[in-house]
Amino acid sequence: SFQAGTVPFTPARFVTRTNTCGELRSAHVGQKVTLYGWVQYQRQGLFLVLRDFQGLTQVIIPQDEAHSHLKELLSSAPLESVVRVTGTVSPRPLGQENPKMPTGDIEVKAETAEILNSCKKLPFEIKDFIKKSEALRMQYRYLDLRSPRLQSALRLRSRLVMSMRQYLCNLHGFVDVETPTLFKRTPGGAKEFLVPSREPGKFYSLPQSPQQFKQLLMVGGLDRYFQVARCYRDEGSRPDRQPEFTQIDIEMSFVDQAGIQRLVEGLLQHSWPEERGSIMTPFPSMTYEEALAEYGTDKPDTRFGMKIVDISDVLRGSGVHFVQNALSYPHGSIRAICIPQGEIMEIIRKPDGSLKSLLTKFLGEKEKSELIQALNMQEDDVVLLAAGEHKQCCALGALRLLSANLLEAAGLALRDPTAFHFLWVVDFPLFLPKAENPTELESAHHPFTAPHPSDASLLYSDPTKVRSQHYDLVLNGNEVGGGSIRIHNAEQQRFVLEKVLKEDSEVLSHLIEALELGAPPHGGIALGLDRLISLIVDAPSIRDVIAFPKSFRGRDLMGNAPDYVTPEELEPYHIQVSWPLEEKEAKKN
Amino acid sequence: SFQAGTVPFTPARFVTRTNTCGELRSAHVGQKVTLYGWVQYQRQGLFLVLRDFQGLTQVIIPQDEAHSHLKELLSSAPLESVVRVTGTVSPRPLGQENPKMPTGDIEVKAETAEILNSCKKLPFEIKDFIKKSEALRMQYRYLDLRSPRLQSALRLRSRLVMSMRQYLCNLHGFVDVETPTLFKRTPGGAKEFLVPSREPGKFYSLPQSPQQFKQLLMVGGLDRYFQVARCYRDEGSRPDRQPEFTQIDIEMSFVDQAGIQRLVEGLLQHSWPEERGSIMTPFPSMTYEEALAEYGTDKPDTRFGMKIVDISDVLRGSGVHFVQNALSYPHGSIRAICIPQGEIMEIIRKPDGSLKSLLTKFLGEKEKSELIQALNMQEDDVVLLAAGEHKQCCALGALRLLSANLLEAAGLALRDPTAFHFLWVVDFPLFLPKAENPTELESAHHPFTAPHPSDASLLYSDPTKVRSQHYDLVLNGNEVGGGSIRIHNAEQQRFVLEKVLKEDSEVLSHLIEALELGAPPHGGIALGLDRLISLIVDAPSIRDVIAFPKSFRGRDLMGNAPDYVTPEELEPYHIQVSWPLEEKEAKKN
Repeated sequence: SFQAGTVPFTPARFVTRTNTCGELRSAHVGQKVTLYGWVQYQRQGLFLVLRDFQGLTQVIIPQDEAHSHLKELLSSAPLESVVRVTGTVSPRPLGQENPKMPTGDIEVKAETAEILNSCKKLPFEIKDFIKKSEALRMQYRYLDLRSPRLQSALRLRSRLVMSMRQYLCNLHGFVDVETPTLFKRTPGGAKEFLVPSREPGKFYSLPQSPQQFKQLLMVGGLDRYFQVARCYRDEGSRPDRQPEFTQIDIEMSFVDQAGIQRLVEGLLQHSWPEERGSIMTPFPSMTYEEALAEYGTDKPDTRFGMKIVDISDVLRGSGVHFVQNALSYPHGSIRAICIPQGEIMEIIRKPDGSLKSLLTKFLGEKEKSELIQALNMQEDDVVLLAAGEHKQCCALGALRLLSANLLEAAGLALRDPTAFHFLWVVDFPLFLPKAENPTELESAHHPFTAPHPSDASLLYSDPTKVRSQHYDLVLNGNEVGGGSIRIHNAEQQRFVLEKVLKEDSEVLSHLIEALELGAPPHGGIALGLDRLISLIVDAPSIRDVIAFPKSFRGRDLMGNAPDYVTPEELEPYHIQVSWPLEEKEAKKN
Repeated sequence: SFQAGTVPFTPARFVTRTNTCGELRSAHVGQKVTLYGWVQYQRQGLFLVLRDFQGLTQVIIPQDEAHSHLKELLSSAPLESVVRVTGTVSPRPLGQENPKMPTGDIEVKAETAEILNSCKKLPFEIKDFIKKSEALRMQYRYLDLRSPRLQSALRLRSRLVMSMRQYLCNLHGFVDVETPTLFKRTPGGAKEFLVPSREPGKFYSLPQSPQQFKQLLMVGGLDRYFQVARCYRDEGSRPDRQPEFTQIDIEMSFVDQAGIQRLVEGLLQHSWPEERGSIMTPFPSMTYEEALAEYGTDKPDTRFGMKIVDISDVLRGSGVHFVQNALSYPHGSIRAICIPQGEIMEIIRKPDGSLKSLLTKFLGEKEKSELIQALNMQEDDVVLLAAGEHKQCCALGALRLLSANLLEAAGLALRDPTAFHFLWVVDFPLFLPKAENPTELESAHHPFTAPHPSDASLLYSDPTKVRSQHYDLVLNGNEVGGGSIRIHNAEQQRFVLEKVLKEDSEVLSHLIEALELGAPPHGGIALGLDRLISLIVDAPSIRDVIAFPKSFRGRDLMGNAPDYVTPEELEPYHIQVSWPLEEKEAKKN
């Protein structure tokens, strides 16, 4: 559980303890020590186990008359009470050593002790804590924080970020600059929290990222910027999202896409926790188009195969109606994934080598054999087919993941749980048709993303075909970072905003003006720290790597936030609550 | 201006430049280099000076026919344009070396170049920038950021914080934990910004410090916490305050006041910038009472004398009416400061050794001589007297600082501008009478501050007499930090909130409950980073050490925040603007 010896410091500095509870070994036998910790366990007035952040130590309670007061004190201390114990380190009696416990060779014979804070009755036993509802655990977050699980996640997070800072700051000349969080709404910033100011009708907003500021720092000649930046996003209720989150925010001048990628690979390699193995660089790279074609998603989990295969050509000659129909669309195709030892019935290869499927009667022998070859089908494998437009075929990507989950639940080892597969996804489209009105375009990422150099002229003739200099970093099928080379030319930025996106460029006039006054070419990236850490420690949720997370409804269940305020408290901000009709009525009655 | 050689890294990594503009020396002569930078100066098509974050390099423009295109390009580039220059490092011709310039022994003979971004006409010349109004400089903050002044302040800030992190994290086992900024109002949190949530009538608030969370982390067994924490305070318009600011936030378990003080002394000593000399530890310490008595303030500037002297006993025998009147108050006294070579007329020691004052005629020879001795008066010194209650005498503290400013303006060297005098002020009162109703008490700092151990029993009998375990860190007369040992006993916390402060403890019930469930004794401190850095770099305002500060009215003059939002944008938050009457009327007409 607790990892001893991972903290390279003298925990006795500035306090009166001599050692932590994870520290004592046979070499300490005979020393007089003072420990501070929580009562983890106590048995019949004979001994107790003391716990602190670093581990556990067994404390022997003296049984002689002269120490009756001490015995009384220690045997009556409720579990989770905070105590100081001073005593002498002794070897455990022969045969009673505990090899599973780092301090299992010794015990401390108590000589004096003090109950620093007695613990009242806990709302539940700590050992049952993990079984309780998450809401209850969040209400008593400070108790859950005592668990080895959260202790080690938060400590790993602190160490990893420190190591990233050393890489950026000490090795590569990055400057840690704090940017404001009270700013103003960005165009289309519907997910930005508002903060009322004392000027009537005027609001700050909490930005989703320091994007504008980091670009302005480059215009200001800072050259290399980074920040562990708190960001805000009001998405209402969404599972495993937090209204505030943290990103490792990076920007550089005079850099290209490859430069940022090598920097980030070095950053992750440098800060990667030793106990999680090592990671190889450079990371493989895949275009957006390849990712969608082979994995049906722009964040492929490359830890396993089951890639999507285009079998349009195999089936093109068949007379099957839906095949012909699908192939008649502009980007129509027939695609398939092959699931090893699947169990649902679609196309199955039987032990005699023949295919069993509703489809097979429509296929000739040549087509059957080509199908087996194209999908590299083994005995008992199952194939799932999708036919239709590009987007429909991409649905196979979700099926691929679902199938992997089902196969693993059934005991097939498909993905190595200790493997970390990083992947760059590149060459995204610069613009996408708006969902609500496909004749209009919106930025695939944000309006500051530079077009791909080879597609720059297309910007003016056919913007839908322009690829961007955006890059995503994917880890085991999760997006853990994204960035781009930015537009540094004011004309180009104005064209994108006004002509392509049809947006009012006035709200960004300060940024465009900055591009006119000596802006260097620049680019950057932001890594999602919460998600990255949760993948590294294999936590099911980002809530497990945040000290005080909000519930999925955005509530702090411990302190009860958000909360009502009085009309008087709203007055300086010139706002009032518009109660929904039903609540207004309810208040009347 | 620019300090060369302070950046210990290879700035060529990840980019195609070979060197920065501050790096080249005679040893580089003969090398082919590629520099990126801004055109700082250009002269008659003969040479230009290229600038980046690290310094300046002189670039020679070739004059031969074969390079006419290059000459045309470089001579026509407007100042502050961004260019790439590739060329060969050459020694400057004999006698043309510039010893004031770190790169002054060399020049780069340009071979190829590229204008990466041409600069449009600047709103003013960069060299006149410092003369412009601060509002204009804040509007074009990204131009001001190119100045050596801001570059070096922000880089020093980054380095110093990094060094603090290394001390806390790597040397002393502190864990960097991020705490939420979307929380709920603390009792009496009138200065907390509100953030409307999507639940009707419910608001988050942006906390003034992570106080509750850091205490809960101690209850959670984190043992040693720190955070470079963004904090928020809505004070409306106040000069040299910022609505968001940064503090080095620290908390430890099992520690006492001395432990925190030694930790902080070590922290500052470890991270102190070399170029500012060194600081001695431990820092001197002074009680709140002594500070008020001798300096008339709880944040004394100890770089100079002119201490306040109690001369009550000297004058007690005199028949002067106001003296007798002042001494009749419970804490009445007569105090004085002696201003060396002052020039205003109060009591002056004349060259013949006699005193000249409206007061002297009321004094006997013995009293006059005692006065000279008590104040150690020299020739031409001036004494300012204050008589009355304690608070009135403390006004001498402000007079002392004012006098020091006047004397320095007149050319007297009183305070060493390179000296850094740290001071602990301790033994503050735990409670103070409320300004608006002196029969009620409020916390001198905050309700979680623990009473002084020697005064613990007074808490229940005479709370006004209780000293606290609060400590302030003062630097050159500025408060740069404050902290305390906290209450860890639930009963005591409840007593303070309910019985002494008469507050509703319900809003803090989660914290009190946490104290009941195994809270260790703990304490901490917060250092005001913006103020500390501004003192270290001797900047007149904290705005000079913040990349994008707000104006003193809380506005971002570059991006124009806060700003109006539409009623539709307010709708999801169930709020509407209450327009002040005059604006409502104006809108109607």
